[in-house]
Amino acid sequence: MRLRQQFRNVTPNKDVTIKSEPDFIQKYLAPLTLGAPGTFGLLDDTAIIPVPDGHELVVTTDAVATGVHFFADDNASDIAWKALAVNVSDLIAKGAKPLCYQMALAFEETPSDDWMNNFAKGLGTAQTAFGMYLSGGDTDVRNAPLSITITAFGIVPKGRLIRRSTARNGDRIYISNTVGDSALGLALRQDAELMASLKEFDENDLGYARDLCKKYLWPRPPVMLQQSLLDYASAAMDISDGLAQDLGKMAAASGVGAEVDLMRLELSEPAIILISLRPELNLLERVLTGGDDYEVLFAVPPKKARDFEAAAMKAPTTVQHIGEFTEDKAVRFLDRDGKTIQLNSGGWDHFRKSQ
Amino acid sequence: MRLRQQFRNVTPNKDVTIKSEPDFIQKYLAPLTLGAPGTFGLLDDTAIIPVPDGHELVVTTDAVATGVHFFADDNASDIAWKALAVNVSDLIAKGAKPLCYQMALAFEETPSDDWMNNFAKGLGTAQTAFGMYLSGGDTDVRNAPLSITITAFGIVPKGRLIRRSTARNGDRIYISNTVGDSALGLALRQDAELMASLKEFDENDLGYARDLCKKYLWPRPPVMLQQSLLDYASAAMDISDGLAQDLGKMAAASGVGAEVDLMRLELSEPAIILISLRPELNLLERVLTGGDDYEVLFAVPPKKARDFEAAAMKAPTTVQHIGEFTEDKAVRFLDRDGKTIQLNSGGWDHFRKSQ
Repeated sequence: MRLRQQFRNVTPNKDVTIKSEPDFIQKYLAPLTLGAPGTFGLLDDTAIIPVPDGHELVVTTDAVATGVHFFADDNASDIAWKALAVNVSDLIAKGAKPLCYQMALAFEETPSDDWMNNFAKGLGTAQTAFGMYLSGGDTDVRNAPLSITITAFGIVPKGRLIRRSTARNGDRIYISNTVGDSALGLALRQDAELMASLKEFDENDLGYARDLCKKYLWPRPPVMLQQSLLDYASAAMDISDGLAQDLGKMAAASGVGAEVDLMRLELSEPAIILISLRPELNLLERVLTGGDDYEVLFAVPPKKARDFEAAAMKAPTTVQHIGEFTEDKAVRFLDRDGKTIQLNSGGWDHFRKSQ
Repeated sequence: MRLRQQFRNVTPNKDVTIKSEPDFIQKYLAPLTLGAPGTFGLLDDTAIIPVPDGHELVVTTDAVATGVHFFADDNASDIAWKALAVNVSDLIAKGAKPLCYQMALAFEETPSDDWMNNFAKGLGTAQTAFGMYLSGGDTDVRNAPLSITITAFGIVPKGRLIRRSTARNGDRIYISNTVGDSALGLALRQDAELMASLKEFDENDLGYARDLCKKYLWPRPPVMLQQSLLDYASAAMDISDGLAQDLGKMAAASGVGAEVDLMRLELSEPAIILISLRPELNLLERVLTGGDDYEVLFAVPPKKARDFEAAAMKAPTTVQHIGEFTEDKAVRFLDRDGKTIQLNSGGWDHFRKSQ
C-alpha cells in the first residue's frame, strides 16, 4: 500500500524470525534503554531527555554507512560500536559527559536474529564503555546498504562547553592517544599486498595487523579525559577527518596558526613498523591526513599544562603535546630538520569524490 | 584514502558548484539556524539545546528515504517539508511545542545548487510553519538513494507529556482533520488508470487529484492543536501507520478496546469522490489502513469534550469525534448498520515485505 513495496526486492532470509517492527524493538532495542524512565521502554513515540539543574544539553549527529565507514561483512558488533563511538568523540571533545542517544537504523533487508543479537551486544558494550543508554529512534527497511544514524546527547555544566574556536596564540597543541592507526588499518584491509608484507614481518604474531584493523572498527574516544578537558582545555574538537585537516579547521576557527613538531608525535608500535616497512608508500602522510581517528585535538594554555598532564595521567589517558598554536595563520608540520613537510591530501571531505 | 572512494561511482553533475562540505553547510544550512545561540552557526561540532525552567525536553527521530516516503523526482522543497513534518506530528501528539531539529542528510551524489536551494526553501517554509530552527546535523554522500533522518526536539511542561497508554474506558476517540488523503494520493500516483478516472470526473478542474497527491508530500500535523491536547487529552499518538493499526496500538497500550462509528468519520471531498467513483477497489479500506496521515489520534474524557471542542475551534483546528474507547479489548470499525467491518490490512509495518 505504501510506496516501499514497489522498490523492495528482498532475498528471503530463512534465519529471520522477527515478525514485526514492534517485536523487533522490544526484543533487541528496549533492553538497551536500561529502564531509564524517560524512554518509556520504547513503547511510546518520543522520549524525555533529563537535564540536571545547572547543566546544558549538548547534542551531536553522525551517521555511519556500509561502504563508507565499515565493510558489508564486518561483524555487527563492531559496526554497532563504531556507530556510537563516532558520536561520543564529539561529546568528549566538548567536555560533555555522555548521557544517551537516539538511533535510526535503515536495513537493506530484515536482519537475522544472529546479526541483531551481535549488533545489540556491540551496542551494549559501547553503552557501558561510554556510560550511555538508548533513548529512542526509528527502524526502516529500504533498498540501500545498512546505515545507522545516531544523535547523541551529553551534559555539560552551564556555560562550560568547550569550543573549537577559542585556541590562543602560545597554547599547547595536544592530542589524546595516537593518530593514524585507523587509516593504516583501512589501508591494510584495502591492500592485500601491504597486509602480506606486515604479516611476513610479524612472524611472532604480535598482532600488529589485527591491532591496526581493530582501530578502524573500534575507535576509542577518550571518555576518561572528559573532566580534564573541561578543567584545562581552552579549545577542543574531535579528530575525524585527519589530524592535518582538523588542526587546520581549529586554527582557522580560532584565528591563529599552528606548528606541529613531528619529532614529538608518537605513533603506535604497529604504525611505526608499517611505515618503516614500506617507506616508498609515504604512509606517514596517511597517518596525518587519514580520517577515522575519533581522538581529541585540544589546546591547553602553557601555564596550565603541568596540572593538566597530571590530571590526564590520573584519568588515566595518554595525551601528547605535539606543538604550539602560533600568531601567524599558517599550519605547519615540521620534520626532524625543522623543515615544513608538504602534505598532498588535506584530509577527508565528505563531499570529495576521490582522493 | 577512506573506504568510500571504492564504492562511489558518481555521475559528474555539471550544475554542481559546491566545493566542500563546510561551504555547503554555510551556504544552505547555516541560515536555517536563524542565529539561535546554541547552534554556533553550525561552525562547531555540537549544539546546545536550551530547555526553559519548569519544562522537559521531548525528542523523536524519523527518517524519510527515496522510494519509501517520496519519489526520486519529487520536488526538493516537498521532500524537505515531509522530512520535518513526519517528526513534528510526534511532538504535537505528545503535547510538546516544537523547538528545533538535528538533520542527517545522505545524498547519492553531490546535489546541484538548484536542488539545494529548493530543499533549503522547503525546510525554511516548514520551520516557519512549525516554529523551529535547525540545530545541527551531518551530511554525507554515499552509494544509496537520498535519505533524510531528523531528530526533532520539543518542550513540554514538566510531567505533562501525553502518553499513548493512558486512554480510559469511556473516553472519546478523536482525530485531527481527516485521514486517508495521503494514502489515496499515493494510490493515484501509483495507478495511472485511477488517476485518469478521477481527472475525467473532475472536468471543472477542482483540483481533486492535486489535493490528494499534495497531502502525500505535504502532511500537515496539527501544530495549532498542541495546547488544547495538553489541556484536555488523556492519551495521544500520531497517525503514521494507518488509523486502524495506530488505534489498535493505542487501545492495546492503554488496556482498553475501541469502537469507531464509520458514519461519524468525515472524509475530505476528494476522498469521498474517489472512493465512490471506484467502489470495486474498496478504497475506504485504504483510507483506514494506509499510512502517511501524520494527523493526531487522541482520547478526551467525555466531561471535558465540550471545553476541548471549543478550544480546538479557537485553535483553529478541525477535530472529529469518531468513536469511544471501550471496556472489552477489541478494536471495531462499525458500518452504517452497526456491523463490524473486516479490514484485510492492519496498516503499515516497517518490517513487512509486501502487502
